[in-house]
Amino acid sequence: MEIVCLLFDGITALDIVGPYEVLQRLPEADVKFVARQRGAVRTDSGFLALVADRALDEVTSADVLVIPGGFATRALERDADLLAWIRAIDTTTTWTTSVCTGSMLLVAAGLLEGKEATSHWASLDRLREYGAIPTGQRVVEQGKYVTAAGVSSGIDMALTLVGRIAGDEFAQTVQLGIEYDPQPPFDAGSVDKAPAAVVEVLSGLYARRGIASSSA
Amino acid sequence: MEIVCLLFDGITALDIVGPYEVLQRLPEADVKFVARQRGAVRTDSGFLALVADRALDEVTSADVLVIPGGFATRALERDADLLAWIRAIDTTTTWTTSVCTGSMLLVAAGLLEGKEATSHWASLDRLREYGAIPTGQRVVEQGKYVTAAGVSSGIDMALTLVGRIAGDEFAQTVQLGIEYDPQPPFDAGSVDKAPAAVVEVLSGLYARRGIASSSA
Repeated sequence: MEIVCLLFDGITALDIVGPYEVLQRLPEADVKFVARQRGAVRTDSGFLALVADRALDEVTSADVLVIPGGFATRALERDADLLAWIRAIDTTTTWTTSVCTGSMLLVAAGLLEGKEATSHWASLDRLREYGAIPTGQRVVEQGKYVTAAGVSSGIDMALTLVGRIAGDEFAQTVQLGIEYDPQPPFDAGSVDKAPAAVVEVLSGLYARRGIASSSA
Repeated sequence: MEIVCLLFDGITALDIVGPYEVLQRLPEADVKFVARQRGAVRTDSGFLALVADRALDEVTSADVLVIPGGFATRALERDADLLAWIRAIDTTTTWTTSVCTGSMLLVAAGLLEGKEATSHWASLDRLREYGAIPTGQRVVEQGKYVTAAGVSSGIDMALTLVGRIAGDEFAQTVQLGIEYDPQPPFDAGSVDKAPAAVVEVLSGLYARRGIASSSA
């Protein structure tokens, strides 16, 4: 089971580490972290670096492809080489997945035209620019394409995928292994639940960073 | 706000990346990843490496200290240099925290004697070996000491901490930023909720890896 996780400078770390932590527990998982070139990439904050053991041209297939997000995806939507690599890997996958604005790369690669998909809430409407149909669900399955909402949703996406691949009981074993019994101290994890002032602050921030729909 | 995250070979990646992803969003956060020596550490699976920008002896204080877990902590409980470093940093902290079996290092360092604490469920009883009082709570606050249960619980712990440090509204902004509206596809994230067969499989695994209470 070859699981390929894309890395790039400006990545949001939890976007990829959440799914990795779940998927690496699959039987015979072989997880490969890949970036434009081998070596460390810096996450969006600049505080953390993750290591890609392989360059893009060293990876030509995957059973599961995971594309994470971050502010950096806005520029990567126009990265023809990366999009071509995503399209090429996708021809070999059983599952092609994304977390957060990683779905912007899947749509930019032309993989989700006419399909339902999700993304970070602030980028959700931008999926339409590439012909995908935004949904408010946290995890969206369309055949082999599975997209997840913002950042932390990759954990839910990956558990869903483990259930599909290895069965519900195995997925429950993974869930218990990572003790995923979430108890957030607040209930503000979606735009429907968060106070208006909280949504407003973040929407302004994202517009300035160029990922929000309003800046499209 | 100096946030110091410990790294070591054999770390469980989500243990530290969960809290990092939350805490890095604090106003004026300055997050430092530190390990015995500068450079990459390999996570427990061997598939991923995280980079420590600083060596232990380059970091002498922290506002927030985060100690993650992983199978490797069992050996680190006897690492006198590391425990001395933890004790030294702790004298400077406003908050000393752990995720998963990271609490085994806090108790081994003598910091939680007579205090309530938590850990990964499979290691929970082992806290007693060092004089701490295990609790079944997901996040346990004892003055400046905040311990969290297994792996994914570090996200809940860090959100709790952000609320304490920057107020509830700010913490809600962070929660919405990472779209933390968890919707696990199964309800098996704690030993109370998981099917008995699932608990049994994992308990056997952990006993063989030497982290379970029964192998103490």
